Amino acid sequence: MMINVVYVCLNKLVHVLVCPCREVKRFIDLTPEETSNLWITAQKVGAKLEQFHNASSLTLAIQDGPQAGQTVPHVHIHVIPRKSGDFEKNDEIYDAMDVKEKELKEKLDLDIERKDRTLDEMAREADTYRALFS
Amino acid sequence: MMINVVYVCLNKLVHVLVCPCREVKRFIDLTPEETSNLWITAQKVGAKLEQFHNASSLTLAIQDGPQAGQTVPHVHIHVIPRKSGDFEKNDEIYDAMDVKEKELKEKLDLDIERKDRTLDEMAREADTYRALFS
Repeated sequence: MMINVVYVCLNKLVHVLVCPCREVKRFIDLTPEETSNLWITAQKVGAKLEQFHNASSLTLAIQDGPQAGQTVPHVHIHVIPRKSGDFEKNDEIYDAMDVKEKELKEKLDLDIERKDRTLDEMAREADTYRALFS
Repeated sequence: MMINVVYVCLNKLVHVLVCPCREVKRFIDLTPEETSNLWITAQKVGAKLEQFHNASSLTLAIQDGPQAGQTVPHVHIHVIPRKSGDFEKNDEIYDAMDVKEKELKEKLDLDIERKDRTLDEMAREADTYRALFS
């Protein structure tokens, strides 16, 4: 499969990242085929997530480049199911998205100490999503 | 052409909307072909805009459904070239995006009085972008 789906968090803020396997920094670096696969995957993942979490809308975004808030230099789509009243102001979602960007960066930086969820917790979450997206 | 490019504003905040000709409310309502065309167009438009405006990043987003901030029930991608320091906080871009959503809604609601740019101004802007995207 050319596209990866990365599950980030199953708290108040469900937050899934969809990214191409090939590591490219900017959206324009993707081939038309990769762009199609990436977004058709995000579309399917978004629909499943929205239904699974009883949400009614989706935020879909690429922070494409450092000046747009990208901290991890590997193109990824943020897919976030939304509900009425989930954030006091709609745009607080983007602050939350930035926090996730930073967490993701720290995850990839093994020198920084961090508290992971347990392997069991992560395995259970991964199983849930594997069933949902398969 | 199946995809429309709508130019919204050429002030501090350049803001272009890319939308399918077919009027559908939600992203999931697009066929895979429409999804591909939509995003491959947005990719090209974004690259041209970024270069034209000497920007270094892009914000690309769909507010998919009312709880994600969508006010106009016709799927559209926000494409916004970004520069260092264009907003004090990165996420202010999304407040600006919401303002544009509301303006767009008012544009489509002919009952609301509003001050348009002149036809000349709009024609000049459209010419600039036609040349850029052709």
